[in-house]
Amino acid sequence: MVSEAMRQLGAQGNPMRVLFEYGKQREAIVGPENVFDFALGNPSVPPPARVNEVIREIVNGPRADAIHAYTSAAGDLEVRRTIAGSLNRRFQAGCRGEDLFLTAGAAPALCACLKGLCCPGDQFMVITPYFTEYRIFIEGAGAETVEVPAAEGTFLLDIPAIEAALTPRIKGIVINSPNNPSGVVYPRKNLKELGALLRRKGREFGAPIYLISDEPYREVVYDGVEVPWVPHCYENTLVCYSYSKAISLPGERIGYVLVPPSMEEHDAVYQAVAGAGRCTGHINAPSLFQQVAAACDGMVSDLTAYTVNRNLLYNSLTEMGFTCVKPEGTFYLMMKSPEPDAAAFSQRAKELDLLFPDTGSFSCPGYVRIAYCVPTSRVEQSLPRFRQLAEQYGLQGK
Amino acid sequence: MVSEAMRQLGAQGNPMRVLFEYGKQREAIVGPENVFDFALGNPSVPPPARVNEVIREIVNGPRADAIHAYTSAAGDLEVRRTIAGSLNRRFQAGCRGEDLFLTAGAAPALCACLKGLCCPGDQFMVITPYFTEYRIFIEGAGAETVEVPAAEGTFLLDIPAIEAALTPRIKGIVINSPNNPSGVVYPRKNLKELGALLRRKGREFGAPIYLISDEPYREVVYDGVEVPWVPHCYENTLVCYSYSKAISLPGERIGYVLVPPSMEEHDAVYQAVAGAGRCTGHINAPSLFQQVAAACDGMVSDLTAYTVNRNLLYNSLTEMGFTCVKPEGTFYLMMKSPEPDAAAFSQRAKELDLLFPDTGSFSCPGYVRIAYCVPTSRVEQSLPRFRQLAEQYGLQGK
Repeated sequence: MVSEAMRQLGAQGNPMRVLFEYGKQREAIVGPENVFDFALGNPSVPPPARVNEVIREIVNGPRADAIHAYTSAAGDLEVRRTIAGSLNRRFQAGCRGEDLFLTAGAAPALCACLKGLCCPGDQFMVITPYFTEYRIFIEGAGAETVEVPAAEGTFLLDIPAIEAALTPRIKGIVINSPNNPSGVVYPRKNLKELGALLRRKGREFGAPIYLISDEPYREVVYDGVEVPWVPHCYENTLVCYSYSKAISLPGERIGYVLVPPSMEEHDAVYQAVAGAGRCTGHINAPSLFQQVAAACDGMVSDLTAYTVNRNLLYNSLTEMGFTCVKPEGTFYLMMKSPEPDAAAFSQRAKELDLLFPDTGSFSCPGYVRIAYCVPTSRVEQSLPRFRQLAEQYGLQGK
Repeated sequence: MVSEAMRQLGAQGNPMRVLFEYGKQREAIVGPENVFDFALGNPSVPPPARVNEVIREIVNGPRADAIHAYTSAAGDLEVRRTIAGSLNRRFQAGCRGEDLFLTAGAAPALCACLKGLCCPGDQFMVITPYFTEYRIFIEGAGAETVEVPAAEGTFLLDIPAIEAALTPRIKGIVINSPNNPSGVVYPRKNLKELGALLRRKGREFGAPIYLISDEPYREVVYDGVEVPWVPHCYENTLVCYSYSKAISLPGERIGYVLVPPSMEEHDAVYQAVAGAGRCTGHINAPSLFQQVAAACDGMVSDLTAYTVNRNLLYNSLTEMGFTCVKPEGTFYLMMKSPEPDAAAFSQRAKELDLLFPDTGSFSCPGYVRIAYCVPTSRVEQSLPRFRQLAEQYGLQGK
């Protein structure tokens, strides 16, 4: 009677959230101190103090009631101009407020881009490993998903592999740097090579190939690594952003699509994004948090805890004999499963109350993803369990 | 290159918003005191004081940072239980928190129901006049729209007309009471007749016909008129609600879908709604406003101004010789165009800086919609212009 595809999506939930729910139940049995939940990317560091200050100023000020009124469908123009100004200062983005379409987080931003661009028969390319929901968003927009693996070992963009997979049916490519789950940041050279490829193939096919750059982790990086401004590497880029991770506001649903002035047929692309937002009920991002976004764009939560956690986990796990990808950004660490079946490895960890998903749902078998956006004390307390796990697999510690 | 259907949706905007933007430009030329904007349903009365109090309490309290974290995809369970409790007290709804799926307002609630229910070839019925965006949401979900006119004169549900239009392809019917734009409230008898019809035809067709009840104006009623609880009239009802109008929070995007326990195959329907939300990026309604909704469910802004405006406008316009539908709820008044072409009438009013759309975009030719959610002084000041308009058409005042 109902859509069976939708029912299944609703019944399953995403695997990280399923594991997270298991953790809650398990905590009730063995106590929260004995469950080590590395499942969900829910930021553990507080938002910058300015976030709640802005809210206080507004609800105590002369706009206290008016703030809750409708804004324009794309978001308040003054807010969009303020954000554009911040992007221009930080990245020399050269954009205007009118290029931004505010959304309730990155998920609707991606959905609006995909549905706005998608014509019958279109496909979108994703780079494995990729965030589980991309496939669902792509299929929800009526398109098909084409997977291309990242370069082995480095997890960077594999330009020859992308070239080999490009056909005129590929309307666009979704990339995500800093990457969930690998933690890798694409360097400028890698992105420029992608840009050159897409430009060349777009000319060959007679239609632009769009790059959809999903950037919720843009500011969550370590050791001062550069996160290049993607539209500078390729003009036909749509930037999808969320304030969820950089300023720890995942529940409030605030983000944007930027259609930069460099985009071919800019106005048609912007209108298509706005139209897709309209027909899925995604207009007028939450108004109070539009103001928060304007006031806090470019701010970053104190990332010290993530940095400490990253170093502690990476160093400890490699010392125990595990093989890990060193994260340059995000708060995820990808670790190779010591047995071929990473789901079995994740299950064995679960028996020690170490909760982290294998990356099968990211279309990347053989790994697990450890979300270390948790208090450092929890990482410290988890290490003996990881050591037990290493011993079970007979790993050779250093 | 992009989806032409989406581009057109984005380029057009909805007619009310287009007229509203014109009003802003016109105000800059002739002064805001000389432009009478009755275009948009943007509540003019402030939210109950409790709204900003709740926000202050949270951001000044121990949960100030934690409040911005992810909630479960369907919304915080405690919040949902609180809202369910309020619905049970107010309407004897007999529902649980687990029956609610919180959304960023009524638009995504409707979209989640439509996409969750829609199978290939499905149609949804709407009753004219209807909110312009219903057709866009229905087509966005992949279904077709079937229009059935409301009963002539009363604008109630025309049960024989609905029966005549019901076929096995009709997956559901979208209704909206109190109605935008007519202001009519469907009485219990009318809804029970609809319920009996749908029950009978559902048995005949061998599949339930779903009723999607869009209720953002549920509490915005006059003279104590009853707004029946629709699931009591028909068991297979999905209730879509928004806090936008009753407590004047249209910008904050908070509402819900309720799948009541009476629903056939309840869990499958709930899962389909949740899955549709997931694949369009609609999960985890804004977290701070989830708390506001829980604290304020059942509250209503002070509607005195709307009541005064309704009486003043209805009495004055009918005295001038216009024919109006007397609103029992909402803050809209439907007025018959004194010439056959209501768009031309709306244009003539526009020349007097009286801004209201004709109801062509509501699929109901021959009328205009006057949104009187404005300060009463604006209604008073507009009356001489309405009188001029009546004189232009040679109407006979009483």
